Amino acid sequence: MAIQALIFDVFGTLLDWHGGVAREAARLLGPLRPDLDGGAFARAWRDRYQPGMEPIRQGARDFADLDTLHAESLEEVLAAEGLGSVAPETKRELVLAWHRLDAWPDVAEGLGRLKPRVLLAPCSNAHIRLAIAHARRNGLPWDAILGAELARDYKPKPAVYLRAVEALRLAPGEVMMVAAHSSDLAAAAACGLATAHIARPDEKGPGTGETAPSVPVDIAARDIGDLARQLGC
Amino acid sequence: MAIQALIFDVFGTLLDWHGGVAREAARLLGPLRPDLDGGAFARAWRDRYQPGMEPIRQGARDFADLDTLHAESLEEVLAAEGLGSVAPETKRELVLAWHRLDAWPDVAEGLGRLKPRVLLAPCSNAHIRLAIAHARRNGLPWDAILGAELARDYKPKPAVYLRAVEALRLAPGEVMMVAAHSSDLAAAAACGLATAHIARPDEKGPGTGETAPSVPVDIAARDIGDLARQLGC
Repeated sequence: MAIQALIFDVFGTLLDWHGGVAREAARLLGPLRPDLDGGAFARAWRDRYQPGMEPIRQGARDFADLDTLHAESLEEVLAAEGLGSVAPETKRELVLAWHRLDAWPDVAEGLGRLKPRVLLAPCSNAHIRLAIAHARRNGLPWDAILGAELARDYKPKPAVYLRAVEALRLAPGEVMMVAAHSSDLAAAAACGLATAHIARPDEKGPGTGETAPSVPVDIAARDIGDLARQLGC
Repeated sequence: MAIQALIFDVFGTLLDWHGGVAREAARLLGPLRPDLDGGAFARAWRDRYQPGMEPIRQGARDFADLDTLHAESLEEVLAAEGLGSVAPETKRELVLAWHRLDAWPDVAEGLGRLKPRVLLAPCSNAHIRLAIAHARRNGLPWDAILGAELARDYKPKPAVYLRAVEALRLAPGEVMMVAAHSSDLAAAAACGLATAHIARPDEKGPGTGETAPSVPVDIAARDIGDLARQLGC
């Protein structure tokens, strides 16, 4: 069955969340804490990402978007750093750090090669407005914004992948999930989607990311350009 | 309050549904009915558009997309023409006529002028895949696909406009609904949105469309380029 659409994980797979949040944290908190380790701050914040979504996945909490979850977990990270008294406007700017992420260098050209041949959409836990910010900043040529907000649930819940497939009016096997995280691909494969792994060995600093998938995938690629090449684009 | 996003009606406002469906009907049914009036066929089909959505608006039927509703109403139109025995594959191609509509000549350039200044999205009764087909064919530079499928309801129900505004994380007054139909704008205005009317005097043949709004609007424009000019873009 020919692949007719690619749907993408975004944080880590297409965008350097670690570098972007570290940069913004250093910029916004540097005046208060000149010795702040922006990377450590970004990692500590991201560590609270999965636990924040879990009550929503379990149905114990209504859907709340990542701006909301990031604002909540930011309080904990700031308190742990002894920065609990940061001004509200600084906190709002810090949440917007997640809107100001830069793509890895291979992304724009790789997506541009794929665009004439297949439909392209994010299937991320980012909400629609956040995905728009990512796309505008980095020229991501999406056909639609799919993902968590459309399903009102968070990956790796099957509803998120299946609602994206439904929106494209394709069969699951005609859609390929692209991610740098094996757990994301395993969940997509369980829904019947094809899968492609992207190596992001430096996702949160040198040597911290997946260099290869730990689960069976249809394609393992070095980057988005390599994915395009392997798909014949 | 400054306008930060424009959301658009599509059928009639941006796309020439009458000409496109007439063209496809003549192409697909001409071999069976050489004297077919494609325009009359398109108008007869479109006349069944509002009644088809009504049970969904009223909650008597679960959300079904326009491909489904068009396929259902097509049976009635073909039967009325004495063409009930048309092959299933021809019927499927006829439904796809609504995917193959061309934009009015002012649309691509006008949207291109607006894009650097405001967010742009359709807020149409078209489902996501249909909106993608429209965008790909005509180069519509959408930031996201909003509208009926996101709300799982049909305009002019308030949920469709309000869900679009929510997805953009804006206040209703920061979003302008753009349409060639006064009834659409009246419904959006009742939800607190700003409104812009586009004159499409030839929507379904010469002299058949609205030349001016019949309700109060914030902007009345000749076409999308004129709208851009009036917004200072």
